[in-house]
Amino acid sequence: MHGGDNSFQVTTGPFPASRKIYAGDSRLRVAMREIALTGGEPVLPVYDTSGPYSDPEIKIDIAGGLAPLRGEWIKSRGDVEECEGRVPRPEDNGLKPGEALSAPLFHPAGRKVRRGKDGVSVTQLAYARRGVITPEMEYIALRENNGRMQARAAAADRGGNSGNPLPGFITPEFVRAEVAAGRAIIPANINHPETEPMIIGRNFLVKINANIGNSAITSGVAEEVEKMVWAIRWGADTVMDLSTGRHIHAIREWIIRNAPVPIGTVPIYQALEKVDGRAEDLNWDVFRDTLIEQCEQGVDYFTIHAGVRLAHIPLTARRVTGIVSRGGSILAKWCLAHHRENFLYTHFEEICGILRRYDAAFSLGDGLRPGSIADANDEAQFAELQTLGELTQIAWKHDCQVMIEGPGHVPMHKIRENMDLQMKLCADAPFYTLGPLTTDIAPGYDHITSAIGAAMIGWYGTAMLCYVTPKEHLGLPGRDDVKTGVIAYKIAAHAADLAKGHPAARARDDALSKARFEFRWKDQFNLSLDPDTAAAFHDETLPAEGAKLAHFCSMCGPKFCSMKISAEIRDAAQKGMEEKAKEFRDKGGKIYQTAAE
Amino acid sequence: MHGGDNSFQVTTGPFPASRKIYAGDSRLRVAMREIALTGGEPVLPVYDTSGPYSDPEIKIDIAGGLAPLRGEWIKSRGDVEECEGRVPRPEDNGLKPGEALSAPLFHPAGRKVRRGKDGVSVTQLAYARRGVITPEMEYIALRENNGRMQARAAAADRGGNSGNPLPGFITPEFVRAEVAAGRAIIPANINHPETEPMIIGRNFLVKINANIGNSAITSGVAEEVEKMVWAIRWGADTVMDLSTGRHIHAIREWIIRNAPVPIGTVPIYQALEKVDGRAEDLNWDVFRDTLIEQCEQGVDYFTIHAGVRLAHIPLTARRVTGIVSRGGSILAKWCLAHHRENFLYTHFEEICGILRRYDAAFSLGDGLRPGSIADANDEAQFAELQTLGELTQIAWKHDCQVMIEGPGHVPMHKIRENMDLQMKLCADAPFYTLGPLTTDIAPGYDHITSAIGAAMIGWYGTAMLCYVTPKEHLGLPGRDDVKTGVIAYKIAAHAADLAKGHPAARARDDALSKARFEFRWKDQFNLSLDPDTAAAFHDETLPAEGAKLAHFCSMCGPKFCSMKISAEIRDAAQKGMEEKAKEFRDKGGKIYQTAAE
Repeated sequence: MHGGDNSFQVTTGPFPASRKIYAGDSRLRVAMREIALTGGEPVLPVYDTSGPYSDPEIKIDIAGGLAPLRGEWIKSRGDVEECEGRVPRPEDNGLKPGEALSAPLFHPAGRKVRRGKDGVSVTQLAYARRGVITPEMEYIALRENNGRMQARAAAADRGGNSGNPLPGFITPEFVRAEVAAGRAIIPANINHPETEPMIIGRNFLVKINANIGNSAITSGVAEEVEKMVWAIRWGADTVMDLSTGRHIHAIREWIIRNAPVPIGTVPIYQALEKVDGRAEDLNWDVFRDTLIEQCEQGVDYFTIHAGVRLAHIPLTARRVTGIVSRGGSILAKWCLAHHRENFLYTHFEEICGILRRYDAAFSLGDGLRPGSIADANDEAQFAELQTLGELTQIAWKHDCQVMIEGPGHVPMHKIRENMDLQMKLCADAPFYTLGPLTTDIAPGYDHITSAIGAAMIGWYGTAMLCYVTPKEHLGLPGRDDVKTGVIAYKIAAHAADLAKGHPAARARDDALSKARFEFRWKDQFNLSLDPDTAAAFHDETLPAEGAKLAHFCSMCGPKFCSMKISAEIRDAAQKGMEEKAKEFRDKGGKIYQTAAE
Repeated sequence: MHGGDNSFQVTTGPFPASRKIYAGDSRLRVAMREIALTGGEPVLPVYDTSGPYSDPEIKIDIAGGLAPLRGEWIKSRGDVEECEGRVPRPEDNGLKPGEALSAPLFHPAGRKVRRGKDGVSVTQLAYARRGVITPEMEYIALRENNGRMQARAAAADRGGNSGNPLPGFITPEFVRAEVAAGRAIIPANINHPETEPMIIGRNFLVKINANIGNSAITSGVAEEVEKMVWAIRWGADTVMDLSTGRHIHAIREWIIRNAPVPIGTVPIYQALEKVDGRAEDLNWDVFRDTLIEQCEQGVDYFTIHAGVRLAHIPLTARRVTGIVSRGGSILAKWCLAHHRENFLYTHFEEICGILRRYDAAFSLGDGLRPGSIADANDEAQFAELQTLGELTQIAWKHDCQVMIEGPGHVPMHKIRENMDLQMKLCADAPFYTLGPLTTDIAPGYDHITSAIGAAMIGWYGTAMLCYVTPKEHLGLPGRDDVKTGVIAYKIAAHAADLAKGHPAARARDDALSKARFEFRWKDQFNLSLDPDTAAAFHDETLPAEGAKLAHFCSMCGPKFCSMKISAEIRDAAQKGMEEKAKEFRDKGGKIYQTAAE
């Protein structure tokens, strides 16, 4: 189903057998999805990132943007002022001086810019440290608690390999304490009140990020908005807009106004556009201007490559794949061209001073991450990680929220070291990794090479996993690639939650497996991460509607169905084997049913 | 490209930029694939499972079957006799008494049946124990050594997490010693001389198996032969024919006569067909007859569910998904119907006596493997594993080769226990696992949920990984699904080889990453596991032939290419940073090239 006006068609509508529910009270209204089951099974509520787009009760108006869920919360804290903000310039969109943005690209929703009053930190970290439990924290507690009450039994099955065991129940105070300790962040720019609050930290559900964004070569505004809606439909917890071409400001505005999830960016990309793509012409002023521009738009977290220090760059010289981070290579080039220290490093405290007025979070970029198995865990990578640890302390001094970006390409036996070192050097700030890819030899399948590494590092403690699509290294992801990447990463994140012993994670596995065992085919499809694909695959060999009630499938056919036999065995074992043995013999041919029956 | 006669079209032809090479001498001729590279890079030889189908010099004749590579080796050992063998019967193909197999289903190649002389074990294990190095072992040493000489440098990067470090060089004597110790098997039925010898053991490359086979509902002879050829083209090291419908004997004959890889089966499936699908009517005689039938055809390894003991069955009663192994459920049903011990267990020594006359290997089936996260590592599973350990000792007593099948569905934190326990209980016999799937919630994507578990358990020491396709739990895999499953498992196996510190595994990763860094796009495609898909994905956004020479791709466009910038940085770092800083400033705009340049 599609909604929105003609120029912006986005995907809307509920999932099969699902409805949107809202936990909490009228003030909080925490969105979740409830899956209805058959066979007398209770409904299963699941964590839901899809926002209002999956609620048929809400009219979607892309031009108007989403309702500002957090608007009153932000206002009522009394520490924010409205202002005119920075005046947009042609170069914000890659236009020439004097050139005007064509009308359809303007997002029409009028909006006042908010910022923290002079000298005040309006970050969730600042509130948490003062002992304040914000509505965002309350919302998150309800959201993360989903299923925990019902799943106490599963707690006995904890993995317990993630350092601290996960709590059995999430209180708002627990959320506050984790944020105050810097172990979790709540990306929530005060200029993005449309977000449904979420948290990134290793004592919560593992999250995933989807990257979208146009490049100089492909893709436009409408396409990117739909990609965002599509990515969150399948489960992306945050979305990064990595656009680098023209209309970068306008695209971002449309995305943010319609995003119920936090939006991240890499501001150096736009800064570079403003200096016509010449890295050596970058300077603090243009970067500062870009940061403020994006803070005012409502970007929730920024990748800032302040850890790419001049002294680290020669460490990459002998690598197989040098510097593969775009931001990292841009800054390395600037450093070399001027033979000076990275200006993001030297101006880091000023950056903190900006970010804390909007509660934009740091995602400290790993500009020197390895781009191949050969370069994993090398001196350059870990030298930068150490710098990121130092910068974390500075950001925290300014009440800024911080997460740390991580690799990249890492063989399995070197993954654990990344997690352990990150926790040690960055004082438990959340880790946010790209994969890692566990081999380089499968371009076209890097959602798989990296889902392996992502699941493992998630288990070890990474808080958010940045997805990789099948197009990685080859081209820009289209709509299908975005979905494939998101599903692969939902798998990795969920596998990590299971292995960490998340008390509620197994509820969905158990419900689905029970449905499978009881031949409730439609329940099995509806409980899956991708009901459409599951149903379509089943129907390829057994399309008849009756086959969805059949006690067998096309894999074994009616005579060989282990599930069917197994159900009989369970029955037998429970009734007493001796008695049942006789019954089995007596019943004879009735045990195998044909398709017709 | 397709070869063969009209009724059997199979996929033939070389891979892009690749040619078939043969290492060794005229007696051994070990098939490998050599990938040609540009930019002055040396050719890269890779392990090759595709058999003669990828060699344009060899005429493919499906009706005639492959040349018997091992025919003379087997004969020259002097311990084998030719015989008429068992007379095929209508029920072998699911036909009624008196009903004849229709002519096109007969495989026309005339063939004498071989078996070991009375009282003689003709297994590779028997030879190995006597200190004999067979040509099969020599072949394997050459095959496994590929790249090791060239990759000594990588040895410094060993993971070393797999217990014993992998040897730097594989000698025929090392192969013999591993087989003699029971740590590795060479599946090589004397009636399947067409195989190119391969080895399954944790001190060798991790192998993968692909399942094919028709069911009562879909698929025929020609389709299954092409699935086998297609699966080995993409990297399957062995293929299991799990057919359960009609014409089961005929299909198997066509597959074996054309298979350069070992073929495995689950003989209880055919035995069940012979008793009209009634598990309780199974008996030792019909099973024994089926075993001999398949041994004479040349099946290289058999899944035998002798570990499903009567006493274990009640342990499955409280499971979420009971017994999910087809073979396991059939035997459990037999046990309950008769309230007697599993006849495969009670006749196990007789089975050994049959298998050692043909050198068919045991793949001791895990009939009680968990079918859901909830059931992982439970009492039923480990009780069976203990029995498999006992049976391993009995098989070894009879000079039979043995590997042990493993799960299934296991969350990440419970995978290691499976490997450790298997090694302990089964005295280091090779482990052969199905996945394991690390979550149940993604039907349609179980090649991914399971590739995660497969990579990990491969790293821990599993010798062969049985693939899972996207159709798992939903339907029978088609041609595309087979390819997707094989590629996902080649990724898992290779990631495991890297993590185990295989001395030569990184050669391909490094060659591909170097090609990527140097913008040798075609080399990157040709080095990948699936060159066709990699090239197609690239061409979706940049189809022009010139783009394959471009120093950028559609992901970043020309201005943002980190690889391009990084190459400049490396140059700078090497030349001396001060000098280069000046040069950078002076050069100005020449650094970014446009697409046209």
